[in-house]
Amino acid sequence: MEYRRLGRSGLQVSVLSYGSWVTYANQIDTRAARECMAAAFDAGVNFFDNAEVYAAGQSEVLMGEAIKALGWPRLSYVVSTKFYWGLSEGPNQKNTLNRKYLMHAIDGSLKRLQLDHVDLVFCHRPDANTPIEETVWAMSDMIRQGKALYWGTSEWSADEIRAAWEIAERHHLHKPVMEQPQYHLFHRRRVEKEYARLYEDIGLGLTTWSPLASGLLTGKYRQGIPAGSRGSMENLSFLREQLTDPAKNEAVGRLEEIARELDASVAQLAIAWCARHPRVSTVITGASRLEQLRHNLGALEVLPRLTPEVLERIDEISKPLAR
Amino acid sequence: MEYRRLGRSGLQVSVLSYGSWVTYANQIDTRAARECMAAAFDAGVNFFDNAEVYAAGQSEVLMGEAIKALGWPRLSYVVSTKFYWGLSEGPNQKNTLNRKYLMHAIDGSLKRLQLDHVDLVFCHRPDANTPIEETVWAMSDMIRQGKALYWGTSEWSADEIRAAWEIAERHHLHKPVMEQPQYHLFHRRRVEKEYARLYEDIGLGLTTWSPLASGLLTGKYRQGIPAGSRGSMENLSFLREQLTDPAKNEAVGRLEEIARELDASVAQLAIAWCARHPRVSTVITGASRLEQLRHNLGALEVLPRLTPEVLERIDEISKPLAR
Amino acid sequence: MEYRRLGRSGLQVSVLSYGSWVTYANQIDTRAARECMAAAFDAGVNFFDNAEVYAAGQSEVLMGEAIKALGWPRLSYVVSTKFYWGLSEGPNQKNTLNRKYLMHAIDGSLKRLQLDHVDLVFCHRPDANTPIEETVWAMSDMIRQGKALYWGTSEWSADEIRAAWEIAERHHLHKPVMEQPQYHLFHRRRVEKEYARLYEDIGLGLTTWSPLASGLLTGKYRQGIPAGSRGSMENLSFLREQLTDPAKNEAVGRLEEIARELDASVAQLAIAWCARHPRVSTVITGASRLEQLRHNLGALEVLPRLTPEVLERIDEISKPLAR
Amino acid sequence: MEYRRLGRSGLQVSVLSYGSWVTYANQIDTRAARECMAAAFDAGVNFFDNAEVYAAGQSEVLMGEAIKALGWPRLSYVVSTKFYWGLSEGPNQKNTLNRKYLMHAIDGSLKRLQLDHVDLVFCHRPDANTPIEETVWAMSDMIRQGKALYWGTSEWSADEIRAAWEIAERHHLHKPVMEQPQYHLFHRRRVEKEYARLYEDIGLGLTTWSPLASGLLTGKYRQGIPAGSRGSMENLSFLREQLTDPAKNEAVGRLEEIARELDASVAQLAIAWCARHPRVSTVITGASRLEQLRHNLGALEVLPRLTPEVLERIDEISKPLAR
Repeated sequence: MEYRRLGRSGLQVSVLSYGSWVTYANQIDTRAARECMAAAFDAGVNFFDNAEVYAAGQSEVLMGEAIKALGWPRLSYVVSTKFYWGLSEGPNQKNTLNRKYLMHAIDGSLKRLQLDHVDLVFCHRPDANTPIEETVWAMSDMIRQGKALYWGTSEWSADEIRAAWEIAERHHLHKPVMEQPQYHLFHRRRVEKEYARLYEDIGLGLTTWSPLASGLLTGKYRQGIPAGSRGSMENLSFLREQLTDPAKNEAVGRLEEIARELDASVAQLAIAWCARHPRVSTVITGASRLEQLRHNLGALEVLPRLTPEVLERIDEISKPLAR
Repeated sequence: MEYRRLGRSGLQVSVLSYGSWVTYANQIDTRAARECMAAAFDAGVNFFDNAEVYAAGQSEVLMGEAIKALGWPRLSYVVSTKFYWGLSEGPNQKNTLNRKYLMHAIDGSLKRLQLDHVDLVFCHRPDANTPIEETVWAMSDMIRQGKALYWGTSEWSADEIRAAWEIAERHHLHKPVMEQPQYHLFHRRRVEKEYARLYEDIGLGLTTWSPLASGLLTGKYRQGIPAGSRGSMENLSFLREQLTDPAKNEAVGRLEEIARELDASVAQLAIAWCARHPRVSTVITGASRLEQLRHNLGALEVLPRLTPEVLERIDEISKPLAR
Repeated sequence: MEYRRLGRSGLQVSVLSYGSWVTYANQIDTRAARECMAAAFDAGVNFFDNAEVYAAGQSEVLMGEAIKALGWPRLSYVVSTKFYWGLSEGPNQKNTLNRKYLMHAIDGSLKRLQLDHVDLVFCHRPDANTPIEETVWAMSDMIRQGKALYWGTSEWSADEIRAAWEIAERHHLHKPVMEQPQYHLFHRRRVEKEYARLYEDIGLGLTTWSPLASGLLTGKYRQGIPAGSRGSMENLSFLREQLTDPAKNEAVGRLEEIARELDASVAQLAIAWCARHPRVSTVITGASRLEQLRHNLGALEVLPRLTPEVLERIDEISKPLAR
Repeated sequence: MEYRRLGRSGLQVSVLSYGSWVTYANQIDTRAARECMAAAFDAGVNFFDNAEVYAAGQSEVLMGEAIKALGWPRLSYVVSTKFYWGLSEGPNQKNTLNRKYLMHAIDGSLKRLQLDHVDLVFCHRPDANTPIEETVWAMSDMIRQGKALYWGTSEWSADEIRAAWEIAERHHLHKPVMEQPQYHLFHRRRVEKEYARLYEDIGLGLTTWSPLASGLLTGKYRQGIPAGSRGSMENLSFLREQLTDPAKNEAVGRLEEIARELDASVAQLAIAWCARHPRVSTVITGASRLEQLRHNLGALEVLPRLTPEVLERIDEISKPLAR
């Protein structure tokens, strides 16, 4: 496994990591979760991504039980959670980054995870209705209280990230260290353009999500929506249009040819492609079955095969369709 | 229910809220308190205002018992307290905002409320004998220690509020977020003139008290002082002169005509009129009986009927008599 | 009793206060201590001064037991302690204000006093071998940890006090609030000259010690050293020369005449004279017997009799002999 | 024993101190450790140096047991630990000064030492892969949490030390106080040249290690590598080349002559020579046997015999061979 620093921080994360979004408690039970985590860990994965909202808290419960059962030394793994969406209805209970919600949320997550601190804590989305300063204070307080070690953002604009960093610098608070953006062959602008200055200016690290574009880049939607896939799930219907986009599925077909030449699947190609970006610290992958996990981790071997020439061919196919 | 941000903060409060001043432990017992709070909560009220001095601590005890009995999730409600008047006699025990009193007071309130933190904590009055810096440090320390989430002031001058904000900004402490001023048809200057710059400059939020001018705006003092009313209570004798002011009571009569046209009581008109100010986050209303509570909450329906034309007629009647 | 603000702080202290230096555990037992403290408190004294070094820790033990037995509400009294001399021999154990000693000392004092915090904590002397910045951080940390409410100095130079204040201001730490200097008719320069600018510039408050010049100003040394007096005690032999100074004892004789005109003892005159200085917040007096305590408190009645004319006569007698 | 301030700090350390590097748990058992520590303490040594990595944590366990058994008052001794190398394999487990490792490491050390705080905590080496700012925050947080009293570095460059100091000053954090460099007759540049400006500019104190150049300066390697010596130990093979350097061993022979004139051993001369530098606060010596300890402490008597003339002769012999 290759390890990279989380941006300019001193924390090292495996370039491929394991996330529990969608998967946990929706499609997976306790034992399968533990087996996937054990296999990932044994393969060198040290970062396990989570969020309060994943499976409405159950994802944290499952991961907490797995960690406890597996008995890893605390220094050997990195766990995250994220706050914004909330677990209940009400004006300060969802879609907010206000102090009341955040200070309440971290205690709930730690309890579900059975941990006394998480390593990374993210603001899961920006909240236009809370001053960034209020959020920065609350995130910094989580660190000061020992409940988290580093904090960052997810899907914030470059301007919002910089504002948070500058406010923390001015008030001598803990500064945001990382951002978790969507990043895959068809979704590039943020990572490649919008954040460009932040890498140098504030040392921003990236933990990217959705390397397979919710499954689109596995090729399985080329012949419509398979039963049991994410595209078929009621609560994920917002994904359907993208997953069945004809032009993108046609491009996936052409990428499969390149993948074949590299002795890889198109999914492995897509994951490796994310990891090839020098500012990406870790690519979060999901898996509900052991074989899927191992398949994804195979992307590590594809990484050195992504020569400039190969990357150019990939760009020709995917870039015109990418945001 | 409509929810508004508390000034520029990310906290949302119901535009009508429920306060325990005067009412609790003077005119109300445990069961009635619980019933009123339950009804308010069910109607969408999420802010419950309190203070150390209300009923000499008993108001906090009653509210604490009610909250415990009702079993609401902690994120679903916002509780306040306020410090200044004190509960006992002595040089550091009353009429002060010094560090000794404040650090002692918060522990007492939390114990009476049976909570580990309040959401809002107010300096109940300014204290000319304590440097604002000393008070700012103590209030900020309450937040740092997790005993409160936001702090503010009550009946402070604009200059005092700004001084507190600037001191906190300079020393990187938690800044005041809200002010609790008296605000009703006959008491307007602070909210409409004195604080005008603070809304933009520091994002000040308002939780206003006495929307009915201690009952004057219900019309019940038009024929003298009813038995059992506040105007008749010995310890509230300072209110009597205002309540029986002939010019004001005559104006109340004219406002009743407007209220009738809007299919409302003058009390509902008066409450809605406070809430119509865009800088008012919440109007605190009191009630010792369920029907009174429901009547007050009816002001919500009056709010959209306050057209510019109606507001102009209300101004003609009340403004000449207002401070 | 008259109460004064401790400098610019919001804390109010009785203008006459009760200190346990010399007295406790040397000349007094548990019961006498409790009786004196009870009488002082009943007369309105709210400040009880102490130090780690007084009677080698026993003074704190006695006062702690008395406070516990008397059961006063915590807000009704102000307790101090002071650190510098230490309780044991060794390079970081005595005559120091380094972080190691200070952080250790406060825990010991709180244990002996059976309190969870003191109100005032003093650096008992300046320490030329510790950077003022190190001491400021440690004192501020005591306050941040809730172990003390205000901190100050004792017998520091104006320059040292200002340095401490400026360092705290720059690093956003708790600033020193008060100084405890020796102050009596024959010892004036610090209070009247050296600190003059500090009262306005940083709001320095004073808790003065030795109003009777260790007994000289009672007149009892006019005929030599009485048996059982401080002047006769082995461990206080450094006081003897001053106590038997002929010129000063002669001046005491002339002050007695003025005192007689004011219907007071020379001791009461001397105590009242200290309290007449507008920058003195409190004059610390000691007493091992109830009658002595009551006699000292009688100075309160002498205070208004100190007219400009009387003060001028006192100056004529004492100023030429004063430092 | 002579005591010196640790740089500009107010902490006093014995000019000769006792370190457990190499010795503990490798060459020494519980009883011997306790005996050496007791003898050192009785001779006035008050600083006991340790590190997480020494004997893989066992050195802390042994020292913790000894301290507990000896029952010294907490103020009477100064204990250190150091972090960088780690106790296990893995990306955030060794060779790092990131926040995750440091916050974890201090808890482990305190547990092994059976203490609630150490006096000194060092960054055992610089970490080019962690921003100095991240390390400064973590070290400062250890102090804020009461787990350590002072922090410093070991074998950092002057530039790195100054960067840490300036970052801490700017963000109002606890600043580094001391550095632990190698310093002996053949290793001088850092202490005498590189750090020269830091002594005045930031008040840097030094706790130097290896006064005997791992035994070279005892003369015992003049006739090859004795059995059982450090030079013969497998895990210390990196020392061998230096220990058997012919030119240096020849110089040791000439230094022995000077030592003989001073009625001392060359080891005592070498230790005293380190202590003669005014910026050295303490010279850390090791000993696995009582007689060795007593022999080393004998260097104290040699110190006053190091006249300018003697020092010049020592320089002539050693300086040309020194780094």
